[in-house]
Amino acid sequence: MRLAPSDVLAARHRRLHDLMAPDALHALVVTNPTNIRYLTNHDGTAGIVVITRDAVQLLIDFRYEAAVASLQTSAAACPTLQMRSVPASYDEALADVLTGLGVASVGIEAGHLTVARHEWLTNALASRAPSTSLRSTQRLIERLRVIKDSFELERLRDAAARLETVVDQSFPALRPGTRERDVAGAIESALRKAGYERPAFDTIVASGPNAALPHHRAASRKLKPGDLVVLDFGGVLDGYCCDLTRMASVGTPSQAARRLFDAVREAHSAAIDAVKPGRPASTVDAAARDVLTAHGLGDAFGHGTGHGLGLDVHEEPRVGRRRADAPDPILEPGMVFTIEPGAYLAGFGGVRIEDDVLVTETGCEVLTSVPRDLRICG
Amino acid sequence: MRLAPSDVLAARHRRLHDLMAPDALHALVVTNPTNIRYLTNHDGTAGIVVITRDAVQLLIDFRYEAAVASLQTSAAACPTLQMRSVPASYDEALADVLTGLGVASVGIEAGHLTVARHEWLTNALASRAPSTSLRSTQRLIERLRVIKDSFELERLRDAAARLETVVDQSFPALRPGTRERDVAGAIESALRKAGYERPAFDTIVASGPNAALPHHRAASRKLKPGDLVVLDFGGVLDGYCCDLTRMASVGTPSQAARRLFDAVREAHSAAIDAVKPGRPASTVDAAARDVLTAHGLGDAFGHGTGHGLGLDVHEEPRVGRRRADAPDPILEPGMVFTIEPGAYLAGFGGVRIEDDVLVTETGCEVLTSVPRDLRICG
Repeated sequence: MRLAPSDVLAARHRRLHDLMAPDALHALVVTNPTNIRYLTNHDGTAGIVVITRDAVQLLIDFRYEAAVASLQTSAAACPTLQMRSVPASYDEALADVLTGLGVASVGIEAGHLTVARHEWLTNALASRAPSTSLRSTQRLIERLRVIKDSFELERLRDAAARLETVVDQSFPALRPGTRERDVAGAIESALRKAGYERPAFDTIVASGPNAALPHHRAASRKLKPGDLVVLDFGGVLDGYCCDLTRMASVGTPSQAARRLFDAVREAHSAAIDAVKPGRPASTVDAAARDVLTAHGLGDAFGHGTGHGLGLDVHEEPRVGRRRADAPDPILEPGMVFTIEPGAYLAGFGGVRIEDDVLVTETGCEVLTSVPRDLRICG
Repeated sequence: MRLAPSDVLAARHRRLHDLMAPDALHALVVTNPTNIRYLTNHDGTAGIVVITRDAVQLLIDFRYEAAVASLQTSAAACPTLQMRSVPASYDEALADVLTGLGVASVGIEAGHLTVARHEWLTNALASRAPSTSLRSTQRLIERLRVIKDSFELERLRDAAARLETVVDQSFPALRPGTRERDVAGAIESALRKAGYERPAFDTIVASGPNAALPHHRAASRKLKPGDLVVLDFGGVLDGYCCDLTRMASVGTPSQAARRLFDAVREAHSAAIDAVKPGRPASTVDAAARDVLTAHGLGDAFGHGTGHGLGLDVHEEPRVGRRRADAPDPILEPGMVFTIEPGAYLAGFGGVRIEDDVLVTETGCEVLTSVPRDLRICG
């Protein structure tokens, strides 16, 4: 597992301090596990970080202590890290650390901390550290993560590139009579062999009428001649996610199936062509949507065009319709996201095509290299 | 996929109404996806439920509409369900539904809702529905889920029983020179073949010194003669989780390895013998801990003895040390949890043995049937 070197972590800390300064935050409590990993390289289901200008305090329980101690002797050690053992309750340990700091203004991650923990901590500090107040912050670390650093770009390129061997090794399992679930098993086995730590999400193999359900996973249905099959999968490599959707037809596709595929493929190309720095992300969505609408498929495309990729398989930026109640991010070099328009016709089936792209100074680099054709099998 | 029949869901709704009544809650907003599934059979990454005495309103976006509509024509239809399409923002749609209800007291799940969503919703209701107030609730649905109903017990028994074929099919991969990751791949492939929808968590294959790290996953280390190997894995069947840990030795174990194994095995048996309805869960933990302490391994057992199992792989009850700041649940028939004491010696390795048990009227039923011996391989 390749981890971010210490100097990369130090640069992330500096950028975070710059974001904390305008809000006059003396400390930030980080509870989102992905954000903790981004700042420290520690990857676990538990842990809390309290970051100040001087130090990164990592609250951690017994299960992870040996792993963190070993990390700190490596080239991926987290600069200024202080490990704090949590004997029992994370909430108690956090209250102790904040009381010890004695600073006025402590940020919390409002998009991650639960109401229950916030209520408990507010009450605890009211008695133990009455001069300390909690302040909601949003998207501080997410704003950093949306622009990938060079370490991350190497990981994401490698993760996406290896999908080609996964396809080569697993798609021969697509045959009439094979169950969706067994195709998913072949894909996940090939992901492991290609070196991924694990699948990035539950593999989707949606055949025939199931293909009309955008979030169908993989069930016991057997592939039949005439089926369209949506195959949507990805892997996690060194912690970074890739995400691909390809289409297959069991036997020769009907004319209707071919038309649906061609329309989505055209929408997909239009979206990729629309990726340029300086544009709102919604223009990429509109490019795909306009093509599908022109084919009479506007209503059949009910989801957004894409989502950011990184340590999480769904992260910023959102690439979707312009909305009054959500930001429409401006594309910047270093952003990585999926392009995945689709069209779904209840009872008939559906088509989705998905690649991963990196915004460059002039347009975009497509990270996934698997041919996009409708694969005829069986 | 077997889903809870409508009458089972109706019974869950009735039990929830009984829990809501003492707090005079007119409605409960359910945002925890597992709780949503428990109440409705809808299983997705998005969705919000607003439950009142009259109806279960499910707010859902395009991606899931067809699946929910199809569910509602089946024997697993959710009684009184009203599907509400969410065109863009879940927060806006929720504010609309609550405004439409016009009731005084609306519960939220404080252990799941984030501070950011809570702040937004509080502000939105202040202007649109000033007579409606939000109230924090904790563990309403979790209190139901901790006692499994007969539908759930069938699923959990089936899930646990199938682990035997997984072991038979995958453990032959344990050979000197094989990488931990490839053993994990063999286990996950066998899980699929046995009919599980997916692994219940990232499979752990921790060999040699890695076995001293309780939450090591599976890496590129190759198995070597003399290694102890911790194999911790499980699958999800019909949505329900099982969780098993078995130990292997590559070649003949050293005397020290055998002693460590025997001590943990003794602790494991003592914990199983301690499971009786009416006792605090901490007595089960104490039974295991006392054995390990008597062997001089008290400090080597740094985690709790077990955790509840159900739709989530970690749920209530917590089976651990008695603590001032956390409840010590009283064991009741129908609870299902793991028993998994361990001992970890940095640099040397570690041992963990884990089974899944159901509390009965008189003691417990062990759901997992795989022999617990130290498996000698290679």
